[in-house]
Amino acid sequence: MTEVSLTRQLAAFVTRSRWEDLSEKVRHEAKRSILNFFGTALGGCRDQATQTAYDVLKQFAGPQTATIIGRVERIDSLNAAFLNALSGNVFDFDDTHPRTIIHPTAPVAPALFALAEERRITGAQLLHAFVLGVEIECRLGNAISPGHYRRGWHITATCGVFGAAAAASKCLGLDEQQIIWALGNASAQSSGLVETLGSMSKSIGVGNSARNGLLSALLAERGFAGPEQPIEGPRGFLRVTGDEPNFAELTDGLGERWEICTNTYKPYPCGVVLNAVIDACLEVRNHPQLNLDKIQSITVEGHPLLLERTDRPAVTTGREAQVSAQHSVAVTLLTGEAGVEQFSDAAVTNPEVLRLRSKVRMIENGSYPVGAARVTLTQADGIEISVRVDDARGSSNRPLSDAEIETKLRKLAAYGAPGIDPTPLIEAVWTLDKAEDASMCLQWARL
Amino acid sequence: MTEVSLTRQLAAFVTRSRWEDLSEKVRHEAKRSILNFFGTALGGCRDQATQTAYDVLKQFAGPQTATIIGRVERIDSLNAAFLNALSGNVFDFDDTHPRTIIHPTAPVAPALFALAEERRITGAQLLHAFVLGVEIECRLGNAISPGHYRRGWHITATCGVFGAAAAASKCLGLDEQQIIWALGNASAQSSGLVETLGSMSKSIGVGNSARNGLLSALLAERGFAGPEQPIEGPRGFLRVTGDEPNFAELTDGLGERWEICTNTYKPYPCGVVLNAVIDACLEVRNHPQLNLDKIQSITVEGHPLLLERTDRPAVTTGREAQVSAQHSVAVTLLTGEAGVEQFSDAAVTNPEVLRLRSKVRMIENGSYPVGAARVTLTQADGIEISVRVDDARGSSNRPLSDAEIETKLRKLAAYGAPGIDPTPLIEAVWTLDKAEDASMCLQWARL
Repeated sequence: MTEVSLTRQLAAFVTRSRWEDLSEKVRHEAKRSILNFFGTALGGCRDQATQTAYDVLKQFAGPQTATIIGRVERIDSLNAAFLNALSGNVFDFDDTHPRTIIHPTAPVAPALFALAEERRITGAQLLHAFVLGVEIECRLGNAISPGHYRRGWHITATCGVFGAAAAASKCLGLDEQQIIWALGNASAQSSGLVETLGSMSKSIGVGNSARNGLLSALLAERGFAGPEQPIEGPRGFLRVTGDEPNFAELTDGLGERWEICTNTYKPYPCGVVLNAVIDACLEVRNHPQLNLDKIQSITVEGHPLLLERTDRPAVTTGREAQVSAQHSVAVTLLTGEAGVEQFSDAAVTNPEVLRLRSKVRMIENGSYPVGAARVTLTQADGIEISVRVDDARGSSNRPLSDAEIETKLRKLAAYGAPGIDPTPLIEAVWTLDKAEDASMCLQWARL
Repeated sequence: MTEVSLTRQLAAFVTRSRWEDLSEKVRHEAKRSILNFFGTALGGCRDQATQTAYDVLKQFAGPQTATIIGRVERIDSLNAAFLNALSGNVFDFDDTHPRTIIHPTAPVAPALFALAEERRITGAQLLHAFVLGVEIECRLGNAISPGHYRRGWHITATCGVFGAAAAASKCLGLDEQQIIWALGNASAQSSGLVETLGSMSKSIGVGNSARNGLLSALLAERGFAGPEQPIEGPRGFLRVTGDEPNFAELTDGLGERWEICTNTYKPYPCGVVLNAVIDACLEVRNHPQLNLDKIQSITVEGHPLLLERTDRPAVTTGREAQVSAQHSVAVTLLTGEAGVEQFSDAAVTNPEVLRLRSKVRMIENGSYPVGAARVTLTQADGIEISVRVDDARGSSNRPLSDAEIETKLRKLAAYGAPGIDPTPLIEAVWTLDKAEDASMCLQWARL
C-alpha cells in the first residue's frame, strides 16, 4: 500500500467533507465563533492600528467590492480580509482554542466573508468551510505545541494562514491537488513573531494570515503549484517551526472530533489568566457591606503563572493594562465592568483607579490551579470580603452562553461602531446556515 | 553608558548614512546588481508563475501607476514590487551573496523602483537605499547562517523583507524610531520555506519580501509602531529563526566594509555548483578534434557536493534540469550555449540531448574544491578531451565583467521580453547615479 502524504490526507479530508457530516453542535459552535468575531471586529474597527493600516492600504487598493466591518468604506477582497482579521484580533478579545492559545476565527472568517462578496457562497457553505479551516489551523497548532509558541512564533498567524487557505479552498470547490497547492502557497507565507505582541506589528501578522490564506487558494485555483508536502516535508512547516512535531495530531480522529467544539470566548478584553480575578472582583462588588472608600488592602492570590504574567503594578497604557492584575482589580471594583473602556489609556490614568491600584498586593500560591484566583478586601471598618473563583467565566468548564456572546457583541458595537444596529446582525449569524447568500450578514455589519 | 539595542544601531546607521560615504566601487557594484536584476526580471516576466500571479492579483489591484518590468500592463506599487521580485527570481538566475546564498537584489530593488514611481526619488537616492537594504539583508543572513537555511528557511525571502523595509525607509526619509518600526513590521512578515523551492510557491515568498518590506516602511511612516527589538529581542527574528545567532555580524565594521561588494552574478540559469561543469563543456566544445557523433562516454568529476546536488540522470522538466549535471553537460555540448532555453521543458525532451545525456557518468573526488569540476570525453576514434575548471565564471575569483552582465541582460530580454530594446535600459542603469528621477530607468524596461 502506498502511503498517502499527510498534506494529501488533509486535502482529501477537506474536499470530501460534507455539510451533512457536521453535527448540530459543531454547526452551532461555528455560529458562536462567528458571532464573537463580529463583536470583536466591530470593537476594533476604529482602533489606531486598523485606521492606519486602512489609510496606507487604500492608496493601493482595488475595486471597492468588499465590506470593512463596522465602517462605511469599501475595499477590495484581499484588503478586506486583511483589515477585518486585524480589527477582529487587535484587542486580543477574540476566541481562544485552549490547547494552543490560537485565536481561531480571525484568520479564517474574514477570508471567507471577503470571498462571499466575490463569489456566490451559501451560508451553509461558509459555515462548513469555516469549521474545516479551523480544524486544519488548530490541528497544525496541536502538532507543534507548546514548543512553537514558546520559541517565539505567534501561532494564530503562523497556523492561521493554513486555516484560511483550506477554508477558502473549500468554498472555491478546489480539488485535492489544488488544495495541496493552496497549502503550499500558504506555507510560503506563514509568519508572525511573539516579539511583536503588544505592538501594532502583531496585527500585520494576523491580517496577513487571512489575506494570504485567501490569496493562496485563489492562486491554486488557477494552477499556481506548490510543493507536495508543505506541511510534513523535510523542510516543511512542521519541522521548520516545530521542535518535535507530533504528526499524528494532524489526522487522528479526523472528521470524528472537531477542534471548533473546544473553542472558548473571552468575557473581558484582557489576558485570559485574569478572568478569574475579574470574576472574583465582580462578586466582591455585589457584597452588601462593600465600601470602596474604606478599603485598606486588596490581595490577589493565585498560581505562580498568574503572578508571572500579570504582576504589573505600574502600567501606563491600555494595552499594558490588559495584562495587569493590579489595574484589572482596581478598575473592575470601581466601575463594576471589565469592558474595552476599562482597558483604555484613559482608564489607566484615572486617579481613582490609581488610588485603588496602589492597594493591591499579589500572593503566589502553588496549590491554586492555573486559571483560579482569590481576591480578598480588607476594609478600615474591619470587614473582610474574600471570593475565590476556580472556573472563570468563558473557560471550558463555564462557557459563555449564547446570550452572553450576544451581549458582548452589543457592547463592542456600541464602543467601536455605534452606528451599527447589532440586532439584525445577531439574527443573521444565528440563521446563517439557512442563508442563500452568506454575504447577507455583512449588510448588517457595515455602515 | 546605556547600551543601544542592535535594531536601533542598524536604524541609526540607515538614517545617518550619506551617499558621499559610499566608494565608487560600492556604487558601481550596486549598478551591476541592478543591471543583472533587470536582466533576470525581463527573462522571467512571462513565466507561468509571473503570469498566473498577475492574473489573480490584477482583480484586486489598485491604481495602475507602477511598471511591471517587461510588460505593457501597469499595476499598483505594492503589487508591482511583488511581481517584479517574483520575475527577477523565478529562474534562480539572479545574483548570489556567496556567504549566505541570499539573492540580494530581488527583494530590495523592486520595492525601491515601485516607490520611485510613487514619490520623487533621485537615482543616487535609490542606489544609496539599495546598498543599505542589501547591507541589512545580508548582515541578518550572516548572523544566522548556515543554520537558518539548513533548518529550512528560504533565506532570500526571510531576510529580504528586512532589506526592502530598510531600503524603502531610507528613501522615505524615515527617522530612527520609524525605521525601528519598519523593521518590526517586517519581522511580522518574514516567511519562506526551502520546501517550496522547485515549485511556484517559492516565488510568493520572494514577491512578498519586496511587497511587504515596502508596506512595512509605508506603515511606519504613518506611525504604525512595532516592537523595539524585532531583530535581537528574546522572541525576535534572529533567536526564533537562527540556532545560534552571531549578533556581532550585525554591526562589526558597519559602514566600513559593504556586503554588496561580495555579490556575484550567475552566467547560467542553473545550480551554481554546475557553473564549472558548464565552463568545462564550453571549453571542450572548442576542441578542434571534438566529434559529438563519436562520443562513447563522458565523465564529470568533482567534489562530493556536486554529486549530491546534481547527480540527476533522469530529469523530465526544465526546472529539474537546472540541478542536473547530466542534462547540463548534454545540452551545453550540443548547443554550445547554457541559457534559459537550454533549461526549458523542450530542451529536456529533445532526443539528441537524451541520447548524449545517457553517456554521462559522475565521479566523486574529495580532493576537488567545492565549485571545481573536470569533464572528460572519450570518443570512438580514441581521442580523449579533458578540461578541468577550478574557478568558474561568475565566482568571486572570476567575476562576470560589466560587458558579460550586459550580454546576459540582452539575452534574457530577447527571451522573455523581445519587444524591449535593452540598449537604453543598460545605459540608464549605468548612469542611474546622475538621474534626477530614478523611475526613468523603468521607461526603458516596459512595453
